[in-house]
Amino acid sequence: MKFRVTDLEELERRISALAEFVVEKIEDDVYFNHPCRNFAETDEALRIRRDSDGVTLTYKGSKIDPETKTRDEVKLKIDDFEKMKEILTKLGFRVSGRVVKKRRIYRDDEVTICIDWLEGLGNFVEIEIESEDVEGAKKKIFEYTEMLGLEREKSIRKSYLEMILDVADNNGEG
Amino acid sequence: MKFRVTDLEELERRISALAEFVVEKIEDDVYFNHPCRNFAETDEALRIRRDSDGVTLTYKGSKIDPETKTRDEVKLKIDDFEKMKEILTKLGFRVSGRVVKKRRIYRDDEVTICIDWLEGLGNFVEIEIESEDVEGAKKKIFEYTEMLGLEREKSIRKSYLEMILDVADNNGEG
Repeated sequence: MKFRVTDLEELERRISALAEFVVEKIEDDVYFNHPCRNFAETDEALRIRRDSDGVTLTYKGSKIDPETKTRDEVKLKIDDFEKMKEILTKLGFRVSGRVVKKRRIYRDDEVTICIDWLEGLGNFVEIEIESEDVEGAKKKIFEYTEMLGLEREKSIRKSYLEMILDVADNNGEG
Repeated sequence: MKFRVTDLEELERRISALAEFVVEKIEDDVYFNHPCRNFAETDEALRIRRDSDGVTLTYKGSKIDPETKTRDEVKLKIDDFEKMKEILTKLGFRVSGRVVKKRRIYRDDEVTICIDWLEGLGNFVEIEIESEDVEGAKKKIFEYTEMLGLEREKSIRKSYLEMILDVADNNGEG
């Protein structure tokens, strides 16, 4: 689940009491659209991420839960950003956008809490669980939402990519 | 360039005089077809290879020289065969075939000579140069062809995948 952050200091105080700080890093993501499917319609995503851990290729399936953004996700480490991009381009995939964010990661067991800052969009908090047990994970995320004082009904379903493309559209750049 | 091997012993004797033996390994290749392009028609290929060096993703463009099988090729190391296969499958790519071969690799500077053995197909020799200088590489390959006593007009343009699919077709399995 993702929320806009209103009081960053208070939120970080609450997170620090619940979870352990892991790392702060820059994540530089490039998203691709499919040669013969419109990911904006199918609600899928294909991404190459570069950060301090290396390069990762990630596929995200369409959301299977409306509130929590639960999705199928497959990711693997790859050796080279440019070569992966070149292969995808030769296969007809097209860059649909780029998302660069500063991310502070906290962890409590299987729960990952990220405080993200994106230029032009501001601060957000994401609560994530990687699990096969969708219902259990959902319940746990709701518990954390409450403990952090976040209002479930204010959760944001849009991806950062969609938010960035919205801003570009509104500025007449899209 | 690729040739069928008639006298393996004599050929290996000649290769050993020209190039240095590097390694013998099993290469296990899975090929994919595109979700909205027929690679058999566009003469492209997308492959995940597993061998003793790890896992590699390779894209091959269509042949740009009729005789030498010269192609654009982009490859990168990846972390996990099954996850790459899963991502490709979710993107609509379909397995078109599998090629397993025993390969003995020899090298002389930028020239790579491989003696391949494939079950049901027999022994082959491949001479390969990775280079931006297509004409120079072509000339060099012809020199090696001659030194190894191979007849240029007997070079095989078909890929191992095509040869395997041909055999399957003839056996009524295709």
